[in-house]
Amino acid sequence: MAFQITDELVSQVEQFIGQQNDKELVKLFEEYHFADLAEFLDQLDTKQATYLIKLLDSETTSDAIMELDEDVRERLLDNLSPEEIAEELDEMKTDDAADVVAELDEGIQQEVIDNIDDEKHAEEILELLTYEDDSAGGLMAKELVQVMEDWTVAGCVREMRDQAKNVTRVHSIYVTDKEGKLIGRLSLKDLLTATERTQISEIYIDKVDSVTVNTDGDEVARIMQKYDLEALPVVDHNGILLGRVTIDDIVDYIKDEAEKDYQLAAGITQEVEADDSIFQLTKARLPWLVLGLFGGLASVFILEDFGELMDDPQVKRLFFFTPLIAAMAGNVGVQSSAIIVQGLANDIVKGSLLSRLIKEVGLSLINGLALGALVIIFGFIMNYDIAFSLTIALSMLTVIIIAALIGTFVPIILDKRGIDPAIATGPFITTSNDIFGIFLFFYISKLILQF
Amino acid sequence: MAFQITDELVSQVEQFIGQQNDKELVKLFEEYHFADLAEFLDQLDTKQATYLIKLLDSETTSDAIMELDEDVRERLLDNLSPEEIAEELDEMKTDDAADVVAELDEGIQQEVIDNIDDEKHAEEILELLTYEDDSAGGLMAKELVQVMEDWTVAGCVREMRDQAKNVTRVHSIYVTDKEGKLIGRLSLKDLLTATERTQISEIYIDKVDSVTVNTDGDEVARIMQKYDLEALPVVDHNGILLGRVTIDDIVDYIKDEAEKDYQLAAGITQEVEADDSIFQLTKARLPWLVLGLFGGLASVFILEDFGELMDDPQVKRLFFFTPLIAAMAGNVGVQSSAIIVQGLANDIVKGSLLSRLIKEVGLSLINGLALGALVIIFGFIMNYDIAFSLTIALSMLTVIIIAALIGTFVPIILDKRGIDPAIATGPFITTSNDIFGIFLFFYISKLILQF
Repeated sequence: MAFQITDELVSQVEQFIGQQNDKELVKLFEEYHFADLAEFLDQLDTKQATYLIKLLDSETTSDAIMELDEDVRERLLDNLSPEEIAEELDEMKTDDAADVVAELDEGIQQEVIDNIDDEKHAEEILELLTYEDDSAGGLMAKELVQVMEDWTVAGCVREMRDQAKNVTRVHSIYVTDKEGKLIGRLSLKDLLTATERTQISEIYIDKVDSVTVNTDGDEVARIMQKYDLEALPVVDHNGILLGRVTIDDIVDYIKDEAEKDYQLAAGITQEVEADDSIFQLTKARLPWLVLGLFGGLASVFILEDFGELMDDPQVKRLFFFTPLIAAMAGNVGVQSSAIIVQGLANDIVKGSLLSRLIKEVGLSLINGLALGALVIIFGFIMNYDIAFSLTIALSMLTVIIIAALIGTFVPIILDKRGIDPAIATGPFITTSNDIFGIFLFFYISKLILQF
Repeated sequence: MAFQITDELVSQVEQFIGQQNDKELVKLFEEYHFADLAEFLDQLDTKQATYLIKLLDSETTSDAIMELDEDVRERLLDNLSPEEIAEELDEMKTDDAADVVAELDEGIQQEVIDNIDDEKHAEEILELLTYEDDSAGGLMAKELVQVMEDWTVAGCVREMRDQAKNVTRVHSIYVTDKEGKLIGRLSLKDLLTATERTQISEIYIDKVDSVTVNTDGDEVARIMQKYDLEALPVVDHNGILLGRVTIDDIVDYIKDEAEKDYQLAAGITQEVEADDSIFQLTKARLPWLVLGLFGGLASVFILEDFGELMDDPQVKRLFFFTPLIAAMAGNVGVQSSAIIVQGLANDIVKGSLLSRLIKEVGLSLINGLALGALVIIFGFIMNYDIAFSLTIALSMLTVIIIAALIGTFVPIILDKRGIDPAIATGPFITTSNDIFGIFLFFYISKLILQF
């Protein structure tokens, strides 16, 4: 299990490719798992990687191609002819093949599909292309094992030998009626322990979870995770069995979604990785920084307004506390929004808005009072006027409460309006809370200190 | 699939429980999936939930208990006698049962285990308790189907019927030698398509991925995800088959880890949910806010230092820009750290530190120049002195570069020292970047504007 790509190995392979030493290359990669091959391809330049793809058996390379990052895959496929791409697609599961076709230039999509040997495979890929990306239809594969209720176990096993050739993992056997309507499932275990002449109708389980083809991907992931499913059949609106979603795709989906949310919270819009180009990284990061800049410029206006009163030494000192207030407003807002966004995603935000409001205010009061006490101790050490220390503590408390409320309710409102609440985490919340926080801070201080 | 808990349903169940109408309750929950029952239990108070647990068949309730949040489960089990808990454990998979036992008060653990009917089950649970929580041993279950290489297919099927009773999903059949050493695997598909008298040794696949019992959970998740495995056998250091990890546990593991990282980035230390108590939420949030407070107080010192020069109108105006600078430093730092932390987790931070340094500086230069241009336009509109605008733009550019470097290299250094780099995202980075940013901003401005 301890597969490691070493520099020596890479340079040896590069040397073999340079010498066109196909025999050694085939021998070297013979035993490779496709996921390891993918990691290897990622280390080579496009030309070398293409050489390997063309050389090695497409049974292995097709799976490896699927494991590559989208941009690496695109560069690779650009070097292959439509015939060569079709050869890879022939070996792929239908859902993977459809994903690859969707990534190709529209100009060559048809030509590639026309070159696929297996006509049924090609048709199925075309069918999958008609579904939305993040729907059950977009996630499912056509490969599955399907039997009829009026078959016997012996007939079923015969038929399965044939069908199973195309199915990597069988999971469940789906039972349909003559029209193809999904009516139940059969576990391999039950099939194995039944006599040959038993009718399927006697042993199948008539309860089977399924989703319709346009069910949202998030919902598919939620169902499979909640019910610990490893495969979930997909039906059309008449209940006809169309395909199935398998857990390996859902694992990738869950991880991608988590990474997207994480990046969004950090102010990174596009899906990028540490090794992407500077241009891609800038495109993902700059927009949020511009938002932060505008927020900062907005606070310049607020501060200029109060700047005229700076002759008052207490007002002057307030300015020293603006970064503190902005930081507290930002941090509290991010905390509140993160908890609510996760709660919304996991469907655990229950109870009325009022009870949530009371909770957030209560929580902020506790945090604010604790932090306020620290500020007063700080003021004591620094020999500040007690009225001044109290002003800072009290306005900070207010800022914390407001920041928590903004952090909580902006995502809830967005969610109710059907907008992904995750965009309200990170820079969006910190920027707006900075502005509100600084404004409130000076305004409350003005009320208390009467300047 | 559209299971929904309605208020009416909850109040009806509460009424049935009040009337001790067991017949209606059993009828109502007969058809429930354990995951739905868990959702339901979560809606009831502890007393009502306990009533249901005692009433319903432990085959369903045991699985439902596993789906509950840890704190809800603890409250529930507190109301059950050791005998009743043992009855639930009897129905659980060994890994789940071991998790539950580990959560119990130490005082009753032994009594609970002594009450488990199936002695082998009890022994296996005790064995699992000896492994580290987040290791392959802590994640694995003892349930699996194991056959010997010298058996025939017929003998294998006979034996499997017996073993499979305890195994919810078979996935793979593991082949061992006489000592119990794992030597390969057999797919159900192959077993199904072989003749009865075939020897297992003729049809098994002698390549099988496995991990040793003390492999880290992250590594187990990475392997299962990379190689699209649905079950991964676990062996001791002599290669003896001990158990297997299944993908449903890994899905939960991946999701938990992602949520932990997300919360850490938002400055939330403990694992909490929106519906946790105010006390729990405070414990998770307050420490990071205190860190932010100390950071803010540190910047008070920096600003007081420059405050003496405030009679100069340009210095005064610089103060209006501190929130802007702090926000940019914080945002850039969070972006850089998020990308690097994800890269480290996914093992894609390649190349030398120098090349990463060059990349971050290049990226920051592009972002900083773009943002600086906007500041100069702003200054033009506001009729600022051009030297002043340039000072702001230039010091912001420097702050952005430094913030990006801190955001990038602090996680890398932590990672090299074996500390989870995720703690360097969020409040830690924003706080330290606030301080550095503000200091740099005034210092550079002082150099340029010569005050």
